Amino acid sequence: MLEELKKQVCNANLELCKHQLVIYSWGNVSGIERASNRVAIKPSGISYDELSPDDIVIVDLLTGDVVEGSLKPSSDTPTHLELYRNFQQLGGICHTHSTYATMWAQACRDLPCFGTTHADHFYGSIPVTQRMSESEIKDDYELNTGKVIVRTFADTDPMQMPAVLVANHGPFTWGASASSAVENAVVLEQVAQMAAGTILINPHQSGIDSMLLDKHYLRKHGKNAYYGQK
Amino acid sequence: MLEELKKQVCNANLELCKHQLVIYSWGNVSGIERASNRVAIKPSGISYDELSPDDIVIVDLLTGDVVEGSLKPSSDTPTHLELYRNFQQLGGICHTHSTYATMWAQACRDLPCFGTTHADHFYGSIPVTQRMSESEIKDDYELNTGKVIVRTFADTDPMQMPAVLVANHGPFTWGASASSAVENAVVLEQVAQMAAGTILINPHQSGIDSMLLDKHYLRKHGKNAYYGQK
Amino acid sequence: MLEELKKQVCNANLELCKHQLVIYSWGNVSGIERASNRVAIKPSGISYDELSPDDIVIVDLLTGDVVEGSLKPSSDTPTHLELYRNFQQLGGICHTHSTYATMWAQACRDLPCFGTTHADHFYGSIPVTQRMSESEIKDDYELNTGKVIVRTFADTDPMQMPAVLVANHGPFTWGASASSAVENAVVLEQVAQMAAGTILINPHQSGIDSMLLDKHYLRKHGKNAYYGQK
Amino acid sequence: MLEELKKQVCNANLELCKHQLVIYSWGNVSGIERASNRVAIKPSGISYDELSPDDIVIVDLLTGDVVEGSLKPSSDTPTHLELYRNFQQLGGICHTHSTYATMWAQACRDLPCFGTTHADHFYGSIPVTQRMSESEIKDDYELNTGKVIVRTFADTDPMQMPAVLVANHGPFTWGASASSAVENAVVLEQVAQMAAGTILINPHQSGIDSMLLDKHYLRKHGKNAYYGQK
Repeated sequence: MLEELKKQVCNANLELCKHQLVIYSWGNVSGIERASNRVAIKPSGISYDELSPDDIVIVDLLTGDVVEGSLKPSSDTPTHLELYRNFQQLGGICHTHSTYATMWAQACRDLPCFGTTHADHFYGSIPVTQRMSESEIKDDYELNTGKVIVRTFADTDPMQMPAVLVANHGPFTWGASASSAVENAVVLEQVAQMAAGTILINPHQSGIDSMLLDKHYLRKHGKNAYYGQK
Repeated sequence: MLEELKKQVCNANLELCKHQLVIYSWGNVSGIERASNRVAIKPSGISYDELSPDDIVIVDLLTGDVVEGSLKPSSDTPTHLELYRNFQQLGGICHTHSTYATMWAQACRDLPCFGTTHADHFYGSIPVTQRMSESEIKDDYELNTGKVIVRTFADTDPMQMPAVLVANHGPFTWGASASSAVENAVVLEQVAQMAAGTILINPHQSGIDSMLLDKHYLRKHGKNAYYGQK
Repeated sequence: MLEELKKQVCNANLELCKHQLVIYSWGNVSGIERASNRVAIKPSGISYDELSPDDIVIVDLLTGDVVEGSLKPSSDTPTHLELYRNFQQLGGICHTHSTYATMWAQACRDLPCFGTTHADHFYGSIPVTQRMSESEIKDDYELNTGKVIVRTFADTDPMQMPAVLVANHGPFTWGASASSAVENAVVLEQVAQMAAGTILINPHQSGIDSMLLDKHYLRKHGKNAYYGQK
Repeated sequence: MLEELKKQVCNANLELCKHQLVIYSWGNVSGIERASNRVAIKPSGISYDELSPDDIVIVDLLTGDVVEGSLKPSSDTPTHLELYRNFQQLGGICHTHSTYATMWAQACRDLPCFGTTHADHFYGSIPVTQRMSESEIKDDYELNTGKVIVRTFADTDPMQMPAVLVANHGPFTWGASASSAVENAVVLEQVAQMAAGTILINPHQSGIDSMLLDKHYLRKHGKNAYYGQK
């Protein structure tokens, strides 16, 4: 089973490259096997053109210990683990510094839902976290990055809002699998670019009506979905 | 005959990919055979790299029923059909969420004609529709999307203005064939990007004079056209 | 001799594609043989992927008559000819609707010299023409486009300023040959993008000092040039 | 030894092309062998697709004389040499006119540290130099370009801030080797684009807290670094 997970996680990482969301060794994708509490994640600082399934590191969800693999896991591993521990439905997580999503994270502004492209994938504004405090940054920084994300979702279902902008940092996205986490990262980058242009063209534009948001989100998600071949 | 139409519609859909107007399964192109009232359209939620002419779905113009093909047609099919029923000269229709055109649609602003690139293809400002009402969104949403477009063209010849921006959504374009609908989508994306830059450089710029608009539009269209090898 | 010119002009047109300054059949490049007053130019409305040297049309500089070739010359031919007749040192001319240069043309603003990239190639602000009058547009539009450009250069050496922005239209560039006209189009597109960003970052920025302009322009051009392997 | 250096410098120059930071013959990268005071640098005005290790020119650090190679060195060589003479830890230097970094240089604004992408590589705002005076421009311009950079770093460790924006010109970057100088140029271009978007989205945004800057910079650099496989 874990061989299959490592392959999926490796492929999902390579998708980041293909969609031009990362350069050099930036970004990382993980996947989880819930039954065994095992998380598969990209090794730290390895270039995408050298990455193979055997390089993927397996860590324990609860302890964070490496249980398989000879490389060090991504330095962002504690963030991933904190999200998996708190958001039970997550099957995969993706972190990038993709250009337009990072602009919004750096601007410390929620990314408004200006249109149906956004509403098809994210149920409302994509939230930016609070800035982290000095003590949160000083020790256990990556774990605390996870905690500040979890805090941001106190009243939000992470499966309806599979993305967050960490203030002054960049986006994390997730989904039922590693590959859907990456798809959400790709779509986030698109809507982040579109939204930047939208406020340039109309600085006073507000988000879409809740009825239109519901229509688009729900025609693709949930029990009454009618998009696609299902 | 329909085999030929399915091939043309398949190729026109693939052109969307080639011109980078779509990712994943986004966007859709259709074509119509007027004699038989048959519309050929992309299936719903199918990736472009898997698309072949056999996947194209044939629906009846009046009833919307699938008359050929094993896949579900695009969820936007009722919008296409409403346009074909009201705009008699249309041979093809294209819908995308292309980046810059969608910015204008999300900004709910008409796209002004700032130059001859625009005037060569679109006879005036490209209109944005009204926002749809709650009742229009709630039931028969895709059909009503067609109706709001038709309403926008009450005083406009759709063959002289082969594009519209659906408010908070994105562009639809059309033409005498599926491939010319796609060409209009490509040009729309170009002029949408140019216009966004134009107002950044000169926020007070207004549209071009009607004489220049006439000159460029009419040197390419209508009985006195003199562009190209005709 | 003309075979060689047709080949050069064909290659220069294909360079436009390679540098992504054109789509479809947009844009055109010409070259001139001064001894015989023959101008070689792209045919009207032909796609770049079908273009071969045999398609290049030869027209007479003074009469504008086609003297060789079976296709119609570019509809912009009268503009090219007017420039060749008035600017004696021109060996090649290029016209595009490249994205960023067209933004400035549409904004009807001179493109300021904000840096040395610009100063290396263009000796000062790149001028925008006056808007054309109704009578200039109505008859002999393409010839009058040439005239309005010539008028813009009343006090400017076109070899020191090998580019112009036609108001509400787009750029023309030129040089000692068809290929250097294209190179100037490529550089113009770069500096147009950089300048748009410059005023976004610093809306009050003014052009560079004349001393820096002289230094950069003159280290590449004229008798004291010291850039390159000459 | 110098054969190896020429190869590294040639490859680093080709990386500029691969990462689309240069067109034509723009930009240049050098490397130094400290033991012999020999600097290897790109020849002036040579296109990247013709560049081989044998074309790399070797100059003397102190005199600037060519000691090996048949081509003229980059016209920016005196700038490189001045930086090597003053910044003892530099192993490589890179100069480009990359689009977004040049926008900031042309805007004469320091590039603020708005996020962790920036903080991972540059320890604070990337400084813009003073504008050069008339006398600095008139004689020994390229040497004086080096001097104005050195002056900008009076209170800054160039290894913690491996980039500068020369006012009205463009970026220089450096590092322990030619290839790391290029990597810093690539990252600079990314953060310059992100920062331009950040101030578009939030014009009042200020730089990140010093604690977050320290955390990110120091987890990648210095004795307590824990990023990567070391």
